[in-house]
Amino acid sequence: MTIVNDPITRIARELSKLPGIGQKSAQRLAYFIASMPEDQVRNLASALWNGRKSIRYCSVCGNFSTEDVCDICANEQRHNGQICVVREPRDVAAIERMRDFKGVYHVLHGTLSPMNGIGPDDIRIKELVMRLSDDSVNEVILCTNPDIEGEATATYIARLIKPMGVKVSRIAHGVPVGSDLEYADEVTLAKAMEGRREM
Amino acid sequence: MTIVNDPITRIARELSKLPGIGQKSAQRLAYFIASMPEDQVRNLASALWNGRKSIRYCSVCGNFSTEDVCDICANEQRHNGQICVVREPRDVAAIERMRDFKGVYHVLHGTLSPMNGIGPDDIRIKELVMRLSDDSVNEVILCTNPDIEGEATATYIARLIKPMGVKVSRIAHGVPVGSDLEYADEVTLAKAMEGRREM
Repeated sequence: MTIVNDPITRIARELSKLPGIGQKSAQRLAYFIASMPEDQVRNLASALWNGRKSIRYCSVCGNFSTEDVCDICANEQRHNGQICVVREPRDVAAIERMRDFKGVYHVLHGTLSPMNGIGPDDIRIKELVMRLSDDSVNEVILCTNPDIEGEATATYIARLIKPMGVKVSRIAHGVPVGSDLEYADEVTLAKAMEGRREM
Repeated sequence: MTIVNDPITRIARELSKLPGIGQKSAQRLAYFIASMPEDQVRNLASALWNGRKSIRYCSVCGNFSTEDVCDICANEQRHNGQICVVREPRDVAAIERMRDFKGVYHVLHGTLSPMNGIGPDDIRIKELVMRLSDDSVNEVILCTNPDIEGEATATYIARLIKPMGVKVSRIAHGVPVGSDLEYADEVTLAKAMEGRREM
């Protein structure tokens, strides 16, 4: 590769590390970026870097947050007696788009996966149990993905926390099996939430 | 949208301005970036911004370059009597990957498109004509895309520079290597037939 292409090659190499961006599209994007006005590229680079720098995890629920406690946990209008357990921060965003759920969240940052060596101590289950020691929690809704690992995780958590006297429910299978929660539409998500059953 | 999502929303908004990245994939990427290690995001942002800042246009051929004259134009091993005319910098990269062409390039930065108000003065045709005033140029190969605008641009340039006594050629049209004859369209087949060579 000639030196003339170096900045473009570097841009393409960095972009190809992102999910869903292959070598070809990374190069195409790099050429596009090379001809973009400088200030637009600055906006993009600054959104990435300053955005990433400002993001930490909420000390209560584990969701992405710019503060120590996220907006949802800090919001007094939300019912913190109802905790929705999800795998990832983007699942929170998916449920929030539904504009129907008034409780709070607990982000596990993963699901149990013995095949990949991910056990109960590797995801935020202990933190969930600690939150339940507060008597104000009366329901835990397990909203992990409707796939094998999500189901296993839900079952594990249900067995673990039911003895603590808390109502445990699982999001209904209104969500198509084998799909990704993030891609469910608002209506499907709302139906699934409405049809939740005690475990 | 809650404040907690602001940096992610901003990242997604900037990413969705890139070609081929829709709202959904921009958001997916933004969530991925939010959980990437900080130094990886810094590398990405710096590749974009420092890369873009270092890129200018070669004063000879118009290709992307980090110097006033690009590597290809500055390379004394290249035959600067043979100029390959292309639409965009990434076409240069495509031809360079072939590792076979030893001449130099001329990047038009566009093609004639009366429908979009792009005339001969809007692309680098004048600069090409100026390069031809140097007697050392003996062939111009027109490598614009084999579409309507690319053909029109090639025809326009050919008519303009032929009177200057320079050899003008057009990249061959034909059936792509490795493809199936059955799936070639009529126009391509006709062109391939017309351009047949004795074996």
